[in-house]
Amino acid sequence: MQSLSFQLKHTCGQARAGTVTTRHGTIHTPIFMPVGTQATVKALSPRELDEAQAQIILGNTYHLYLRPGHELVKRFGGLHGFMNWPKPILTDSGGYQVFSLGSLRKITEEGVEFRSHIDGSRHFISPEKSLEIQQALGSDIMMVFDECPPSTADRGYIEKSLAMTLRWASRSRTAWTNRQQQALFGIIQGGLYPDLRLQSLSALVEMDFPGYAIGGLSVGEPPEKMYEVVEHIAPAMPADRPRYLMGVGTPVDLIQCIDRGVDMFDCVMPTRNARNGTLFTSTGKVNIKNARYAEDHEPLDSQCSCYTCRNFSRGYLRHLYQCGEILGLRLNTLHNIHYYLQLMAGARAAIADGTWNRWKNQQLDIYK
Amino acid sequence: MQSLSFQLKHTCGQARAGTVTTRHGTIHTPIFMPVGTQATVKALSPRELDEAQAQIILGNTYHLYLRPGHELVKRFGGLHGFMNWPKPILTDSGGYQVFSLGSLRKITEEGVEFRSHIDGSRHFISPEKSLEIQQALGSDIMMVFDECPPSTADRGYIEKSLAMTLRWASRSRTAWTNRQQQALFGIIQGGLYPDLRLQSLSALVEMDFPGYAIGGLSVGEPPEKMYEVVEHIAPAMPADRPRYLMGVGTPVDLIQCIDRGVDMFDCVMPTRNARNGTLFTSTGKVNIKNARYAEDHEPLDSQCSCYTCRNFSRGYLRHLYQCGEILGLRLNTLHNIHYYLQLMAGARAAIADGTWNRWKNQQLDIYK
Repeated sequence: MQSLSFQLKHTCGQARAGTVTTRHGTIHTPIFMPVGTQATVKALSPRELDEAQAQIILGNTYHLYLRPGHELVKRFGGLHGFMNWPKPILTDSGGYQVFSLGSLRKITEEGVEFRSHIDGSRHFISPEKSLEIQQALGSDIMMVFDECPPSTADRGYIEKSLAMTLRWASRSRTAWTNRQQQALFGIIQGGLYPDLRLQSLSALVEMDFPGYAIGGLSVGEPPEKMYEVVEHIAPAMPADRPRYLMGVGTPVDLIQCIDRGVDMFDCVMPTRNARNGTLFTSTGKVNIKNARYAEDHEPLDSQCSCYTCRNFSRGYLRHLYQCGEILGLRLNTLHNIHYYLQLMAGARAAIADGTWNRWKNQQLDIYK
Repeated sequence: MQSLSFQLKHTCGQARAGTVTTRHGTIHTPIFMPVGTQATVKALSPRELDEAQAQIILGNTYHLYLRPGHELVKRFGGLHGFMNWPKPILTDSGGYQVFSLGSLRKITEEGVEFRSHIDGSRHFISPEKSLEIQQALGSDIMMVFDECPPSTADRGYIEKSLAMTLRWASRSRTAWTNRQQQALFGIIQGGLYPDLRLQSLSALVEMDFPGYAIGGLSVGEPPEKMYEVVEHIAPAMPADRPRYLMGVGTPVDLIQCIDRGVDMFDCVMPTRNARNGTLFTSTGKVNIKNARYAEDHEPLDSQCSCYTCRNFSRGYLRHLYQCGEILGLRLNTLHNIHYYLQLMAGARAAIADGTWNRWKNQQLDIYK
């Protein structure tokens, strides 16, 4: 038995609905994956994630390697056992986080040497080491270790980086020793250069991964640039494998990229924005800090069925935010995650019904 | 119909089990009241409080008066509606918080002038103003506005303070205009002087309150001194009214004071300690920060049925604490509140069964 299988069920133009089956269960795509950086989706319990119908969450290899350590996590039954989340988990490779350390890291052909952001200690992660960590974490989907140059870097740098990233992808694939248990996705790089993106994809497809991701986007370029790259590359990706756009994005980004053929997304936006008081609703964004909500007796989103919207007023949420109360962070996060997951459920239903274009335009209108 | 009725059901020595019935339901005593300072018990949702079998919670008049303001809370259906807690609520008078402001407040016969700890703005609370605020908050049990001198103050100061506090109690009683809706408790002061405590009690009983509290304890004196005062005063309090010991305390304090005839308690200890990583279990205190728990696969308390203990290991709780994750604050708080409430359930059962002394000694042995 393979560690992962994908079934394409419906299409509407480029938009796709399907299922990804892993050892920990089946994911219905398009799907958004809440980010659980340090073995917890910030502010939420596994029970709440389950009630919000989260199907798969993401863990961060860099953070878990440093704290509590992947070998410790392994002794607790992997990330599933450690955090008590029985459904699928995807881990990133640590690449993006390590490259974000800036002056604290040094890249060579062998891998990346870096200093911990926690205590300054020295560490080294290579493609093989990243796989070793992710195998200890026991995620259902692992990612190859790649370099993430700024999408706006010059062509010379991007070309050189891409060549090394492809050699790293090949090394990752060789280090992938448990193909029945954990899947491994390749990551397409190449900045904003269509030809480099295609070259990256073609080299990865030759290596044959169970799924492919688009990396290095949503790192500062305008959304239209990102949509262009996705529009160019997604339809060229193997139709029989899941397509994952890493680190994206706003509700509009998700809809625009589903429309261009993407199946899976992750982003800290719904959780981080929630903690900053920015909430997504069926009528647009709400900044709950705003004084206009102090006397507002209505729920945050009268169309929403989450615990927050069923039980509390905007006035109460604003009060909790003003006081810095933990319950405010919780209720806001719960709502935003529920919103993102309901948005994906809406997208799946529309693709299955053949009403994708109408649904998409309705949703995009909200954010106009 | 009265706003509150008390039924004494069982006694074992001085220990009592009974029921307090309010407009928002019946409380079984002895009971611990989780503290919800700013219209939320820190880190917990109303659903979690309900699942932990919380019967009544406490709100802080001083904090709610300043933010979001009692009149705003009133327009949201009072504190019950605002925070979506349908069961009984007790509000303090604001006295203790205002007196804790130190140099920021000035006491006169009329009341207390003080500066907000949030923005430095000037305010004035009198016995009448405190009742007005508490009536707007709509709590089931209100407290009279009293002065809380340090229990170690000299006799001259305590005598003078007590005389004024009794005049304030009388003014509070006069300002208590909605006797069918909200109950009002008198507060016994008198520091560590047995005769002053009795004098305070007798004056209050003459005014006839639906319940009586012991105030001004657990403010720095050794526990034995506190137990002495309680042992002296509690049995002299009217047997047909609930007896509330304010701001107390540790699990041992609760047991020792139930043993001396107290029915109701509140304290920030279980919630505050939880956020600092100090947890109460059936085998004693656990400091979850400790490195010895890093590899501990056992639940926090194998005897406990709370969500935390049913689902997570000590190793995971330590990891969350080390990372400063919100879920750690939540799971720790949930457990400590569950522990306190189960302790009270155990006390009630033991008093009803006539096994109080044996149960008490077993519990006290844990903390020896």
